[in-house]
Amino acid sequence: MTDTVISSDRKEVVIGFDRPFVIIGERINPTGRKILAAEMVAGDFNRVVADALAQVQAGAHMLDVNAGIPLADEPALLAKAVELVQSVTDVPLSIDSSIVAALEAGLSVYKGKALVNSVTGEEDRLESVLPLVKKYGAAVVAISNDETGISQDPDVRFAVAKKIVERAADHGIPASDIVVDPLVMPIGAINQAGVQVMRLVHRLRTELKVNTTCGASNVSFGLPERNGINAAFLTMAIASGMTSAITNPLHLEVVKACMAADVMMGHDPDCMRWIRRFREVPAPGAEGEAARGRREGGSRRRRE
Amino acid sequence: MTDTVISSDRKEVVIGFDRPFVIIGERINPTGRKILAAEMVAGDFNRVVADALAQVQAGAHMLDVNAGIPLADEPALLAKAVELVQSVTDVPLSIDSSIVAALEAGLSVYKGKALVNSVTGEEDRLESVLPLVKKYGAAVVAISNDETGISQDPDVRFAVAKKIVERAADHGIPASDIVVDPLVMPIGAINQAGVQVMRLVHRLRTELKVNTTCGASNVSFGLPERNGINAAFLTMAIASGMTSAITNPLHLEVVKACMAADVMMGHDPDCMRWIRRFREVPAPGAEGEAARGRREGGSRRRRE
Repeated sequence: MTDTVISSDRKEVVIGFDRPFVIIGERINPTGRKILAAEMVAGDFNRVVADALAQVQAGAHMLDVNAGIPLADEPALLAKAVELVQSVTDVPLSIDSSIVAALEAGLSVYKGKALVNSVTGEEDRLESVLPLVKKYGAAVVAISNDETGISQDPDVRFAVAKKIVERAADHGIPASDIVVDPLVMPIGAINQAGVQVMRLVHRLRTELKVNTTCGASNVSFGLPERNGINAAFLTMAIASGMTSAITNPLHLEVVKACMAADVMMGHDPDCMRWIRRFREVPAPGAEGEAARGRREGGSRRRRE
Repeated sequence: MTDTVISSDRKEVVIGFDRPFVIIGERINPTGRKILAAEMVAGDFNRVVADALAQVQAGAHMLDVNAGIPLADEPALLAKAVELVQSVTDVPLSIDSSIVAALEAGLSVYKGKALVNSVTGEEDRLESVLPLVKKYGAAVVAISNDETGISQDPDVRFAVAKKIVERAADHGIPASDIVVDPLVMPIGAINQAGVQVMRLVHRLRTELKVNTTCGASNVSFGLPERNGINAAFLTMAIASGMTSAITNPLHLEVVKACMAADVMMGHDPDCMRWIRRFREVPAPGAEGEAARGRREGGSRRRRE
């Protein structure tokens, strides 16, 4: 059993084998969000704050914070976003950047033990990110690609993950502070992508004994009714042993799938979390009503 | 790889390890449906016909037909229901009764190779149902309970299933014509029920090499928002190797979960079934619209 503890100054979240699945909200990310990007560059972080609150309200246990805007001062933006988000919510954060200086800027203002997103198996990333992770006593997402790119072969992706875990150990970072992203391919392009990732998650858990995460939306790329595919993917990934995901908690279908999977895995004792969230059952067929009722249920739960 | 072939006079359905999941519509069953029961006793089978058409329209690949009404002439009612349903749809049927004479009446009028629902591990059931299955060249659902009731211990349930498979062999019925129901307990009462059934399905598949089915709704008994739990259960059961279920295809959430699970398992090549069903994507957030759009998508698919 492996527990990865992440914390803010007020709250601890544990990603672990026998624990409820951890949903990391993905929305605070200007990639592909032109308005958000423009606002952040202009110093307007109202949308960041609103996204933070809405995601926690919807069921996120942690939030990913990314400020990757081309030509912008990413370290300053990321530090500001991290500070602001920590001022309005108590959930722990994943500090997300491909720029090492931005990761450090975010870590330097973060209160608690952050999740650094991410390190890869590339030599320069390993030797620049892992020292930071050690310095700040953080945990880290390890993405299983390297200089050769993303291998289609799950065995190669496993080997890259193993290399990262070993290198982290050289830096004094235990495997329990590494959360491996096995990389999920679009099922519309690779018919075996689902089966592959389930096997890979199982190996990561049983052989490397690490927690796992993924960007859960990639699997449905190009398909209609993506939330249905994402929900099935997450449910199966949880059955295979995946312990967290970076995804959009504003999609009720996705949160519901994760919570129901927790019930099925025996990770929601007496189904109390499920019952609290969904006990206001609307009339059958009233889907709009259902969504509203559930959101109210969620907000009531938070007040308890 | 095990294939269980079921057929009507016009259509063949294969329940199999590497095939799309088979949904057996559960609605034609007067248990707990007072109006339907009263109508059937009065000789009015309009609702039976409507239920048959609606379930096939919604995505059922087979239909279960049950006429279990206390004090009624069940053999005659079941035979009539089977004949009528076969006259309006081409999907194969599961003939469902706890009364052997009713099973025989249904089988005697059935055109094709039926699925008999069901035999248990009880001695008198084994020796009355299995000869019928052999006589009519049918397949059979084997429920893993016996004279001692339903064991809480999955190993005992496995042993009962094994006994049924062995006894069927004595009667000349191959394991490929047996679809085992491992019996799903309510997760609200037994926290480990989900994990237990996944392990049991895996054993049934790898050790006994049989196809599996279940009454999928039992798992969520007593909980709110049951379709969410049922969807997660079916998705995980499919990941564990379950190959069919007797469930309500009128619940879109359940059909969607099964179809998405097929995609994730690589059992929907190029996601063509998924795309055909869901390609009419409504505006985000319009949940009522979404449901209508999907139902129209389903009906268009049938016209193609």
